Amino acid sequence: MTDTDSPVDARPDTNLDEDDRLKPAFVRAVIDAVEREDSEAVRLLVAALHTADIADLIEQVPGEIRHDLAGALGDRLDGDVIAELNDWVRDELMEVLGPVQVADIAGTMDTDDAVAMIEELDDSDQQAVLDALDPDDRAAIETALSYPEESAGRLMQRELIAVPQHWTVGDVIDWLRRDEELTTDFWEIFVVDHRHHPIGTCQLSWILRTPRDIAIEDVMQREQTLIPVDMDQEEVALRFQKYGLISAAVVDSSGRLAGMITVDDVLHIVQEEAGEDALLLSGAGDGDINEPLRESYKARVRWLIANLGTALVASFIISRFEDAIATMATLAVLMPIVASLGGNAGTQTMAVAVRALATNQLTRSNSLRTIRREIALALLNGGTVAVLIGIGTGVVFGNPRLGGVIATAMIVNILIAGLAGVLVPLTLERLDQDPAVASSVFVTMITDSIGFLAFLGLAVASGLV
Amino acid sequence: MTDTDSPVDARPDTNLDEDDRLKPAFVRAVIDAVEREDSEAVRLLVAALHTADIADLIEQVPGEIRHDLAGALGDRLDGDVIAELNDWVRDELMEVLGPVQVADIAGTMDTDDAVAMIEELDDSDQQAVLDALDPDDRAAIETALSYPEESAGRLMQRELIAVPQHWTVGDVIDWLRRDEELTTDFWEIFVVDHRHHPIGTCQLSWILRTPRDIAIEDVMQREQTLIPVDMDQEEVALRFQKYGLISAAVVDSSGRLAGMITVDDVLHIVQEEAGEDALLLSGAGDGDINEPLRESYKARVRWLIANLGTALVASFIISRFEDAIATMATLAVLMPIVASLGGNAGTQTMAVAVRALATNQLTRSNSLRTIRREIALALLNGGTVAVLIGIGTGVVFGNPRLGGVIATAMIVNILIAGLAGVLVPLTLERLDQDPAVASSVFVTMITDSIGFLAFLGLAVASGLV
Repeated sequence: MTDTDSPVDARPDTNLDEDDRLKPAFVRAVIDAVEREDSEAVRLLVAALHTADIADLIEQVPGEIRHDLAGALGDRLDGDVIAELNDWVRDELMEVLGPVQVADIAGTMDTDDAVAMIEELDDSDQQAVLDALDPDDRAAIETALSYPEESAGRLMQRELIAVPQHWTVGDVIDWLRRDEELTTDFWEIFVVDHRHHPIGTCQLSWILRTPRDIAIEDVMQREQTLIPVDMDQEEVALRFQKYGLISAAVVDSSGRLAGMITVDDVLHIVQEEAGEDALLLSGAGDGDINEPLRESYKARVRWLIANLGTALVASFIISRFEDAIATMATLAVLMPIVASLGGNAGTQTMAVAVRALATNQLTRSNSLRTIRREIALALLNGGTVAVLIGIGTGVVFGNPRLGGVIATAMIVNILIAGLAGVLVPLTLERLDQDPAVASSVFVTMITDSIGFLAFLGLAVASGLV
Repeated sequence: MTDTDSPVDARPDTNLDEDDRLKPAFVRAVIDAVEREDSEAVRLLVAALHTADIADLIEQVPGEIRHDLAGALGDRLDGDVIAELNDWVRDELMEVLGPVQVADIAGTMDTDDAVAMIEELDDSDQQAVLDALDPDDRAAIETALSYPEESAGRLMQRELIAVPQHWTVGDVIDWLRRDEELTTDFWEIFVVDHRHHPIGTCQLSWILRTPRDIAIEDVMQREQTLIPVDMDQEEVALRFQKYGLISAAVVDSSGRLAGMITVDDVLHIVQEEAGEDALLLSGAGDGDINEPLRESYKARVRWLIANLGTALVASFIISRFEDAIATMATLAVLMPIVASLGGNAGTQTMAVAVRALATNQLTRSNSLRTIRREIALALLNGGTVAVLIGIGTGVVFGNPRLGGVIATAMIVNILIAGLAGVLVPLTLERLDQDPAVASSVFVTMITDSIGFLAFLGLAVASGLV
């Protein structure tokens, strides 16, 4: 056995637990050092950390000591660390650093990371940072900022490798070796015509496996996915997934090569957009534990108030049956069961439909089929639950008619829940609304209202009260 | 203007709508051709489609014609198409293709795709496919199948480029040009020592930018992220995101290079795992519109029955107050509002906590801080909603004491909801349970029960009834 015999991870990760997170004791030690104002100790502690872990560290410490930690980190707080930070934490940090310092850091970053860093600043702070940048960087960032938020133009980096179509493989390799100014991080090169329009893409592995005298045009792939600068980032992410892309050329409105998007940026978007649906469906907005309290309050209270409105609708329906309830209070005991199960069934269907819409799996071609499928499922689920609750109620209350009423109401409500769970998101999508945002409120209102109405209405209609 | 003047997308995409989905009319035309048994027409229709779109097409047609479509596609139904298929649709298709045909297709695929294709087959079908494979492919696939499901070993491909540490850049390039057998799709090469342990990783762009006589050891990066074969795929995805990886070496238990995972495979996992939480939180299991009805029924009815159990707990609490409700049926009208808003607030907090846990943002270092944050939010939200409902109820029913009771119950329930929303997922995580799976049932039970108990209990205690 030799000294390299801990092969599973070559990073010095003694500060990380088995899930690759910073150990609480380590975070505590850093906090102590910051509180003692011992910058030397802080720098020693973080010396072996990867940039991604320094970013994690900044996120994990309490907000009030982040500024001092940032100061103690010195030049370890570079562009790479800031690019890895949670959006909210980064914005908070930007506000305490001066414009000159932010501009210094931005100058070392790829365009996309620099844009992500300064796009959330106030207009005046943003202007101050832009003024402090050198003219080239400033022009690149200003162009990027001129594109809509969350568009390909914001996401792309301008650092890329583009070669003319008449070059050979050897020309490309010689140029790459010769020109010191070129970027070193790229996975594909783009071949352009005299108007700077991309006409093909070439993986580096193909270049490496081809003799020097072959024309690059004969190696490149002509079928390529070009991303328009104004394409929404969610759409960009779907393209990367669908076509298994590593990088893609971004073209401006006249078809010229404007930049490149790489898969590592897309990974963050996929993660964000896919995770976002769970948060949006719950009405928690952006839902980040680092979001300022005031933002979280605004995002959440809006949906609670909307929910209050829908709860009032359900209340109004119950109030129509007040006499029946006064006569037979057992109805009030049982009615929440029908509403609750309906809500649960509706949420299940809705979550599936929203997901299928987000991944382009549910389309006009199969929506009728999907609706039929959900009806069949609702009948199966509703039937099962109805039998259980019907028999149980009949036996416990010694009242078979009450059992029949709750069983029937349950089937009706779960059926309506299944329909609402798929039709509400589909309708919102057709109306160009994000189905994840508003579906919950409508579906809950429908299942609560129908639940109470079906149960109490059937109780009265069946002559139970 | 020239003939190349539609630069935005070079793929022949007239069959795709603006969101990159197959147009319904096109899908309809394919279905018609399949039903006419006109294979020639089917092949003409799909001639210009990308493999990912052929996979989409198979997903979009009704299940009963998929077999005939597969037959009509002929050799367009290749490994690339099958690798892109939705899991359920692929499994269904595998069952109708014979083992020899499946083995033929598997032989053309990278190990990871072939494993994904056959891992879901019945044991006997799997054996038949393995028997029909050529010995090399068979050995590779059998090794992969010996690793746990959803582990790095299943995900990795064995096709990769590894070079000895003493080679120069020129040696590497010459070998890549010379050896016809090597894979052509790779983004990094791995440098190994004499025991085949990886000692460094080298981006292809670095090789291209370095003179031929430099040693590969001086170009490679020594700090590398090695993935153990038995690491869970969710953990693998987090590593790729955290360190911005394009590919990573997978090592076996003795530290030898066993395979490679590339970011395009990880993209699917990130998408799946992040989207999964919305489905799991709703109790919809895997929740795929292509899942067989029986599987969906089993997954969903389980949670409906669990929900029935929790609804019974709430019912039991209400039943303790039957006399109060008989005296004042208005209580039954109002009580669902308190439960519903609490449920909503709890779901918001829970979604945020589950998301933060899944992305390693919520850790032991900041859980106390997060709990305090949620208490503050709950007091703000609860206060707002309580004022609205309290004043409204007092005015509408001309009963200020009733307004006070519902307002107090609302604050209590939203506070409990906030605590439960963060403590339940945290506790499940500490117990090594997936917080996304079971949190909902507990949180809903707590908010329903406390909602009814607080409101009805306060009504009685305050002398309202």
